Amino acid sequence: MPLSDTGETRVNLSYSPQRMDRALVRVQDLNPEKADQLIWLRARVHTSRAKGKQCFLVLRQQQFNVQALVAVGDRASKQMVKFAANITKESIVDVEALVRKVEQKIESCSQQDVELHIERIFVISQAEPRLPLQLEDAVRPDGEGEEEGRATVNQDTKLDNRVIDLRTTTSQAIFRLQSGVCQLFRDTLTKKGFVEIQTPKIISAASEGGANVFTVSYFKTSAYLAQSPQLYKQMCICADFDKVFCVGPVFRAEDSNTHRHLTEFVGLDIEMAFNYHYHEVIDSITDTMVQIFKGLRDNFQTEIQTVNKQFPSEPFKFLEPTLRLEYTEALAMLHEAGVEMGDEDDLSTPNEKLLGRLVKEKYDTDFYVLDKYPLAVRPFYTMPDPSNPKYSNSYDMFMRGEEILSGAQRVHDAQLLTERAMHHQIDLEKIKAYIDSFRYGAPPHGGGGIGLERVCMLYLGLHNVRQTSMFPRDPKRLTP
Amino acid sequence: MPLSDTGETRVNLSYSPQRMDRALVRVQDLNPEKADQLIWLRARVHTSRAKGKQCFLVLRQQQFNVQALVAVGDRASKQMVKFAANITKESIVDVEALVRKVEQKIESCSQQDVELHIERIFVISQAEPRLPLQLEDAVRPDGEGEEEGRATVNQDTKLDNRVIDLRTTTSQAIFRLQSGVCQLFRDTLTKKGFVEIQTPKIISAASEGGANVFTVSYFKTSAYLAQSPQLYKQMCICADFDKVFCVGPVFRAEDSNTHRHLTEFVGLDIEMAFNYHYHEVIDSITDTMVQIFKGLRDNFQTEIQTVNKQFPSEPFKFLEPTLRLEYTEALAMLHEAGVEMGDEDDLSTPNEKLLGRLVKEKYDTDFYVLDKYPLAVRPFYTMPDPSNPKYSNSYDMFMRGEEILSGAQRVHDAQLLTERAMHHQIDLEKIKAYIDSFRYGAPPHGGGGIGLERVCMLYLGLHNVRQTSMFPRDPKRLTP
Repeated sequence: MPLSDTGETRVNLSYSPQRMDRALVRVQDLNPEKADQLIWLRARVHTSRAKGKQCFLVLRQQQFNVQALVAVGDRASKQMVKFAANITKESIVDVEALVRKVEQKIESCSQQDVELHIERIFVISQAEPRLPLQLEDAVRPDGEGEEEGRATVNQDTKLDNRVIDLRTTTSQAIFRLQSGVCQLFRDTLTKKGFVEIQTPKIISAASEGGANVFTVSYFKTSAYLAQSPQLYKQMCICADFDKVFCVGPVFRAEDSNTHRHLTEFVGLDIEMAFNYHYHEVIDSITDTMVQIFKGLRDNFQTEIQTVNKQFPSEPFKFLEPTLRLEYTEALAMLHEAGVEMGDEDDLSTPNEKLLGRLVKEKYDTDFYVLDKYPLAVRPFYTMPDPSNPKYSNSYDMFMRGEEILSGAQRVHDAQLLTERAMHHQIDLEKIKAYIDSFRYGAPPHGGGGIGLERVCMLYLGLHNVRQTSMFPRDPKRLTP
Repeated sequence: MPLSDTGETRVNLSYSPQRMDRALVRVQDLNPEKADQLIWLRARVHTSRAKGKQCFLVLRQQQFNVQALVAVGDRASKQMVKFAANITKESIVDVEALVRKVEQKIESCSQQDVELHIERIFVISQAEPRLPLQLEDAVRPDGEGEEEGRATVNQDTKLDNRVIDLRTTTSQAIFRLQSGVCQLFRDTLTKKGFVEIQTPKIISAASEGGANVFTVSYFKTSAYLAQSPQLYKQMCICADFDKVFCVGPVFRAEDSNTHRHLTEFVGLDIEMAFNYHYHEVIDSITDTMVQIFKGLRDNFQTEIQTVNKQFPSEPFKFLEPTLRLEYTEALAMLHEAGVEMGDEDDLSTPNEKLLGRLVKEKYDTDFYVLDKYPLAVRPFYTMPDPSNPKYSNSYDMFMRGEEILSGAQRVHDAQLLTERAMHHQIDLEKIKAYIDSFRYGAPPHGGGGIGLERVCMLYLGLHNVRQTSMFPRDPKRLTP
């Protein structure tokens, strides 16, 4: 089959012989104002349907699409209609076409008021005829598929063919929103005077005590992948950067095959010196989260609604100021709901979920802070509560009942830090550089680490963190 | 020694018993407008010098410092002067002090028009008396140290004690500027319609052919650390994200102990679909670089001048539009300068440097693009030049004669990509997911990867990439 009706073949490979000034119109800009103009456009063939002397195409660019028509007549030959009808779905084409206003809205397309009458069509890149999955199946809501006997695509098939799955309107919306979360996070913190830092991912000692850490061969020795930028962001505080943030991968060698665990995810990390009380840190973090929620609500409505079409969920609710509960208050709420657990026990995942529901009922918020965790369930560098040594100056933050951030005031005194590390049976020799950082004057400080994929999942009311990781990594998945 | 003259000890550990509303003034805000005000301030003791009934301190916050005085009299007792004189350098103190205008400028401080008369002083965090290095030695220009017989600090000592070294004015300036580079990079690209993506660092197959890759134990199998986000950013282009960027760590298991190689560095990566010619990609990247250069010039003059005090260099020069030379032109310049090398040889580091000098002489620019590299010296996914198969649609970009970016138009046809991979003897099975990405319609595209640390080093005219990496990793260094 020739790749073009004008005999230009393999145009995709002979690219760049010379520059060309032909303007390409974007699908999203096609509207009645462009009626009767002859335009050039590059897009994917989303669907094609031949019908006698005509061929109807839907042309797609990201989340936008438009109906196009090749019809035998002045503008197109019979061969051209046949050629167009044979173009495989997902191929990329260049078309020259007349924009025409339509009488009746085209409900199935994003551009409802116009259609294209194609005069020339070239295949820029041809898709293989058999697609590993159909885009329309991949965006079908689960229930709808079952009821109507139509296909849906299971998650592993989607992830195995992620490049196709990422083309769906749902995926396009999710990852544009994710890009927005990162930008809102950084912009908010930059305005607050935070400095962005870059911390090493290959480290000589396991940062959080040795469990669940990936080992790397490093020339003649071995090293580890950082489970968080924890130690390094604290070292930056000791190095006078005052308020820092970083965005980067963190690695957990946990053999957890759940809806919310990944072995590699993106950490949005914050650390800051404070003046008098670690609640200054909580206030900075919750305000940052609120700015993210507001930015998403105000600037990403289209994306939110696109995702909701496939995965319906309630709008995300938050309060200003953010609700802050103490651990003992939360335990009281759980006890009242019939849960039995000790004062110094950690929250199980089901209890976190239940607590989220109780908090939502009582306070009408999907976002809150749980403060003053039992010291026993927190890492060695957590500052004990000076007024009650069973507890600590530490907190988690929750969205829709799931943890998205863990944070604390940190021990900034080398002597106490040494004692706490020994209590946790950590090999002091391995964290010497870290502990030494606190020997030459260290300000009181605290911070937290946010999981980007969880924030996106829970904000959108999705149910699996793999949906918000472009190329997820879990104990069983290393490809693509 | 008591930690405070008022008997409040271990104030650093009992932090956060209650919130306090006392406002702390920033050192940089101390000016004659605050004269005769009683203020609170938290800062490090930069230096202290007792002299009879007085003790002179220099108090420091990041790159700013101010002179302070404790004198026996109405405001301070003899004991308090002694207490102040005994506070170790680099300790963090809270002081209550009267701001006083001075007659004669204090040349040695950033705040030259005022000094502080201390009424109360508390030690917030005490530094150990013996510092591993002196900050004033660490910022002394190399030559000056030798001439005057004063100490300078060698690089390994600095890096071994990075938390102290990062407190110097030079380090503070370098890493604030680096934070600026990242922000300018992202803001420019976001304005151009690029989407930020997050790509996995743990991968199942070596992305660039297998050499120089770190191996990770991954549960019962093994995996690799990504040498670049190359394959993933291209997959995002195939997934219709159109224009993408990412900022993240890249890993190279190269046993290169040079001034410009790191085993882990931060990649600023760009990939974009283009319409007709890969020079559209070059234009986007060079414009982004120019926006970074302008942003640094306009917003980071203080930082640039601070670094120049220790490491003098000529201001960074660039042209608009950016100079673009073809490889054959560069070879002609080198031949003319007496260099012997073949048409298809790669540039050696000394020849790159020489070429940089020749280009600077002829065109007066520190930044340029070298286009159309020999195909033989580029990775398998590089698009051959359609008009001359010995060459390729690929380019490097240089700052002060050193490479900071490598990029190209990529092969977007699965068949040609397979041929090129086989030519490079790459195991097709291992890059199957990557090659398959191009089977379902792929737009022509190109991009490049920029080394953040190199950009900062070369913009500032520094001579070692370890100076622009907070916690550098090389074959011999894994700590701190």
